[in-house]
Amino acid sequence: MSRFITKTLSALTPYTPGEQPQDMKYIKLNTNESPFEPSEKAVEIAKEHERRLNLYSDPQCILVREKLAEIYEVDKDEIVLGNGSDELLFFSFKAFCDESRPAVFPDITYGFYPVFSEINRVPYKEIPLRDDFSVNIDDYSEKGCTIFIANPNAPTGKALPVETIEELVKNHPDDVIIIDEAYVDFGGESCVPLIHKYENIIVIRTFSKSRSLAGARIGFAIGAKGVIGDLNTIRYSFNPYNINSMTMAMAYGVLCDEEYTYKNCRTIMENREFVSNGLKSLGFEVIDSKANFIFAKTEKISGGKLYDELKKRGVLVRHFDKERISDYNRITIGTKKEMETFTETVKKILKAGEQP
Amino acid sequence: MSRFITKTLSALTPYTPGEQPQDMKYIKLNTNESPFEPSEKAVEIAKEHERRLNLYSDPQCILVREKLAEIYEVDKDEIVLGNGSDELLFFSFKAFCDESRPAVFPDITYGFYPVFSEINRVPYKEIPLRDDFSVNIDDYSEKGCTIFIANPNAPTGKALPVETIEELVKNHPDDVIIIDEAYVDFGGESCVPLIHKYENIIVIRTFSKSRSLAGARIGFAIGAKGVIGDLNTIRYSFNPYNINSMTMAMAYGVLCDEEYTYKNCRTIMENREFVSNGLKSLGFEVIDSKANFIFAKTEKISGGKLYDELKKRGVLVRHFDKERISDYNRITIGTKKEMETFTETVKKILKAGEQP
Repeated sequence: MSRFITKTLSALTPYTPGEQPQDMKYIKLNTNESPFEPSEKAVEIAKEHERRLNLYSDPQCILVREKLAEIYEVDKDEIVLGNGSDELLFFSFKAFCDESRPAVFPDITYGFYPVFSEINRVPYKEIPLRDDFSVNIDDYSEKGCTIFIANPNAPTGKALPVETIEELVKNHPDDVIIIDEAYVDFGGESCVPLIHKYENIIVIRTFSKSRSLAGARIGFAIGAKGVIGDLNTIRYSFNPYNINSMTMAMAYGVLCDEEYTYKNCRTIMENREFVSNGLKSLGFEVIDSKANFIFAKTEKISGGKLYDELKKRGVLVRHFDKERISDYNRITIGTKKEMETFTETVKKILKAGEQP
Repeated sequence: MSRFITKTLSALTPYTPGEQPQDMKYIKLNTNESPFEPSEKAVEIAKEHERRLNLYSDPQCILVREKLAEIYEVDKDEIVLGNGSDELLFFSFKAFCDESRPAVFPDITYGFYPVFSEINRVPYKEIPLRDDFSVNIDDYSEKGCTIFIANPNAPTGKALPVETIEELVKNHPDDVIIIDEAYVDFGGESCVPLIHKYENIIVIRTFSKSRSLAGARIGFAIGAKGVIGDLNTIRYSFNPYNINSMTMAMAYGVLCDEEYTYKNCRTIMENREFVSNGLKSLGFEVIDSKANFIFAKTEKISGGKLYDELKKRGVLVRHFDKERISDYNRITIGTKKEMETFTETVKKILKAGEQP
């Protein structure tokens, strides 16, 4: 950092995104992207909704919000769009946390939550997951804070049922509960229906995973009009044109082909089953995942070593050099073929390790 | 706002973007967009650089940064990209201002500066422009603050010469000076060359005006590696994938056809001359503008009334109901035909006002 950065931020540790090495072609199983491109139908519909790029994009994002409202059976004023769900998470920290209202989230979860706390200079408390990596909502009884739960959680893939979240929301009538559902389409249960019963829950979603638009950068938040209005206030105080016209058209196109999204999610779930079984048969412990990735370890090789050996062989996975989880690797679920190659590669690595 | 928003933000007044009414087709001269679409050449080149949308966009934005580095004769590490220049201004407030380091800017300037101060809870000081709306840099002698100057300024269109800015930068060796050059391509002088001499200046630019990409949302900051690194630290703590792949490809395409950009800028400057003369001949006082808009008033009709009458007749301009400038309207320079229609419409309005 330069000598000019404010003292208050001089200790800031930015988020580390998954690596994108350019030295060779990798099977990329490290950033939880979809292996499937948007459908031709989606691309065609997007073209019909192209807007002249010399004009500003619609700050109200009507096209996409109306379509989302139809799909999720909510009002369009119960939806706000972000430049990726990260932006909406950032807005949530800004709107609902401050010195006197700390953020609370699990110790093992999306790595951006502590970064968003720090950049907004918000105190935060990390609540340890149970030993089996499940969230124990009894540990979240303290009032006067804003709670962030990724459900399914990352990088574990573990999910809570809606009733458990509802209990949390009900027990915190004066606190906002943010449910980050980036991965919910791969077998989790969505909390969206709760927004009609409670004014203090916000569900954050992304187009980056199940909807194949990681590169287009778009996410959305669903909640009661009050809290969504607050996020919009932040948005209008930061970047009213946060969603560009091309992304809006593409997102609309994708929403017009939900069958394709469902089909891809089913495929990912099948491939997840396939690779989980493959790893288990090789002696891995694989956490039961409801996401488009799995989290796995084995006593035969350390997490860091497996990551290195896979990378050498052209397969990128994600390893977190962090307490409690450094034995594990997070493996994004790709195509069947990618999963076959991955499993074969792991087999070879283990075999090579056994050589005297 | 809901009862959940933090107390610290409950007085926040968001920015008001220029209106985008949908009730009829307007000649849109209210948001300083370019009237020209990106060139066919730019669109073709963008297509060649399309990336699979299911994969995350390049967080390093190499393609665009390398091209910008070539054009502006700087190192690619002296450039950072934003989701519009607004995002980079926000990052600058975050990086270089806090409770003990206030923001300083003119009382009449881009309306987002006070909003960015408020949302980041940064104290700010507005320095009055001279009566002729020029910036007097002698008024910016106080040290220990971060100074934001739009050059050319908005909504006045007035510009300072580079030597004057250089004096300011030299006099503030321990403060960061942010020069917002959104409108510089229409006759202003850029401060980019100063970044090689001073480590405390950041020049912020946009693709939304001269480069016809308002709807694609992309801006860039140029400065010494230290301060640009600071902005990158903020960016990586907020949204490392802030620029989507489609926008990156389009921006690259546009940068490959600089001749088209230059030609459009010349046309805008000619049309500015044309409409300025037209208004002057109708009795208007028109501030000498180096931007793609003019700021004009007349004693024959109030600023608010002229705005209303133009809107009724299908012409949108921007009126600020703010002290010192409520007599004026800001008129974006469009095509020659739009400017002719605008001038004719003003003539009719004035004539109708003269009727008994």
